[in-house]
Amino acid sequence: MTEFGFIERIAARFAALPANGFEGIGDDCAVLPIGNHEALLFTTDLLTEGVHFLRAATSARELGRKSLAVNLSDVAAMGGRPVATLLSLSLPADTADDWAAEFMEGYREVSERFGVALAGGDTTRSESGIVIGVTAIGRTETSRIKRRSDARAGDTIFVSGELGASGAGLADLLAGRYDTSLAAIHRNPQPQVAEGLWLGARPEVHAMMDLSDGLASDIRRILERSHCGAELDMERIPVAAGADLRLAACGGEDYKLLFTADTAAAARLAADYRDRFGAPLYPIGRITEGTEPVWRQNGRPAELIGQGFRHFD
Amino acid sequence: MTEFGFIERIAARFAALPANGFEGIGDDCAVLPIGNHEALLFTTDLLTEGVHFLRAATSARELGRKSLAVNLSDVAAMGGRPVATLLSLSLPADTADDWAAEFMEGYREVSERFGVALAGGDTTRSESGIVIGVTAIGRTETSRIKRRSDARAGDTIFVSGELGASGAGLADLLAGRYDTSLAAIHRNPQPQVAEGLWLGARPEVHAMMDLSDGLASDIRRILERSHCGAELDMERIPVAAGADLRLAACGGEDYKLLFTADTAAAARLAADYRDRFGAPLYPIGRITEGTEPVWRQNGRPAELIGQGFRHFD
Repeated sequence: MTEFGFIERIAARFAALPANGFEGIGDDCAVLPIGNHEALLFTTDLLTEGVHFLRAATSARELGRKSLAVNLSDVAAMGGRPVATLLSLSLPADTADDWAAEFMEGYREVSERFGVALAGGDTTRSESGIVIGVTAIGRTETSRIKRRSDARAGDTIFVSGELGASGAGLADLLAGRYDTSLAAIHRNPQPQVAEGLWLGARPEVHAMMDLSDGLASDIRRILERSHCGAELDMERIPVAAGADLRLAACGGEDYKLLFTADTAAAARLAADYRDRFGAPLYPIGRITEGTEPVWRQNGRPAELIGQGFRHFD
Repeated sequence: MTEFGFIERIAARFAALPANGFEGIGDDCAVLPIGNHEALLFTTDLLTEGVHFLRAATSARELGRKSLAVNLSDVAAMGGRPVATLLSLSLPADTADDWAAEFMEGYREVSERFGVALAGGDTTRSESGIVIGVTAIGRTETSRIKRRSDARAGDTIFVSGELGASGAGLADLLAGRYDTSLAAIHRNPQPQVAEGLWLGARPEVHAMMDLSDGLASDIRRILERSHCGAELDMERIPVAAGADLRLAACGGEDYKLLFTADTAAAARLAADYRDRFGAPLYPIGRITEGTEPVWRQNGRPAELIGQGFRHFD
């Protein structure tokens, strides 16, 4: 639910409707407080053949894994624990039963790994390509919810892993190179569920989201929602093996976490994270009182080429 | 979420997953008790062009209304109050902006009529037809939830309105007659939200579901889940103007409520319902200790032609 596009443009038409306890639109998930200091989180995604995946380039099992993983990432990005999903599958007549069984096996693998129930769903026929609709439901303490709107001037901006591998893998797939390790990374995103939960429990973490459209594009969402600017140090962006800076900044679907944290507590946070996960957090810049992201390379202004990978529209 | 098909067949593979508080699969909605005697209800549907609708035969506004209405019907069918929805739209490049704006206007109309929030959603590109994914969220007291599994031998079986008009309208549409009143009924289903809530509050109502696939097909769901049989009196089935008995019994998408109630309280229930809604409840048979639906006409065994309208595979 990271792309609103059309719906966001007409949100004003819907603003007059009762909220019924739901928070407003604009984060990775919709939020419903349910009392007793708890809230539920909701996110939904449609994956359509030919836009989000190519049947020839992705195994059914990998697609089953990925369909779930990207939604779990949205829940984790708000500090939530994913608890259940609803799955709708629309399958053309030419889709073999084997395909559906393999898809479900991949979906089950990821459900099991993250302890998520399949609470419902349905299958329907499609007259065109395969369509996959997933709704994920998360649960968390309200005090742990991280939103895009909570960045504060002076915060350190972090990413929780190396970037660009998925974008490089997509380039391989589009060039017909299906068997590379980068292509496999693109097809098998790893949602940072434990990491998101852990960061959710840290009050020094302010704004958070997952990197689905690419750093250059996604950081703008935090800045817009938080009404602030940022300085980003290109040389500190962690570039994954096989990728380059452009892919790391503008490639999509890395599904790492992008967040801001109180700078006074940032060193301790990163040290504790390393103790817990055996991996570093990468500080890549700071939140400012401006309104735009400003990119620098070794302290000098630099222009970012590209505006973020757009995997929609 | 009334058709499980493939997913139900492999439910055993998912049964080992933690339930995380969710009740098992098998009703119009998934159920999550949230404490304080309350529960949330969840249902999801994918509508795909060429299978669930024909773009030429349905206006964008009507489709916006219907996409939401059929999901609200699922919530109402369990005695719940719909509170919010998530909407995903996948639109081909040839879909004009006007189409999307009209769709959203229809969606907004029904949201407003039933006081339902739009809590989130996204739009993506489609390489083939239009795809609409809706997840509806309902809320209710746990004591008011009606399931398919609660029918008891001796119960009276009711439907909450005349049947067959939608099926007759579909026949019109498939014959190219788009402008008939029956075709308009098919394109504009009216979910019985207030009726479902009211019936949910009545303890003498036992099992309930909405009629989406047709009476002949849907009654089997209640019997299977409740482990009982039924005798159904064909001559008591309320046939809508323009329809016939076959369409009333086997046509789909009427979105009336099908429920069972304690026979000792049935007359009072129907009288109170008429007082409240100015419309009758139609008793069409009774639950038995058998295992199958048995159809009768004027007391004599009769064979039902057809097995219910199948709008899914």
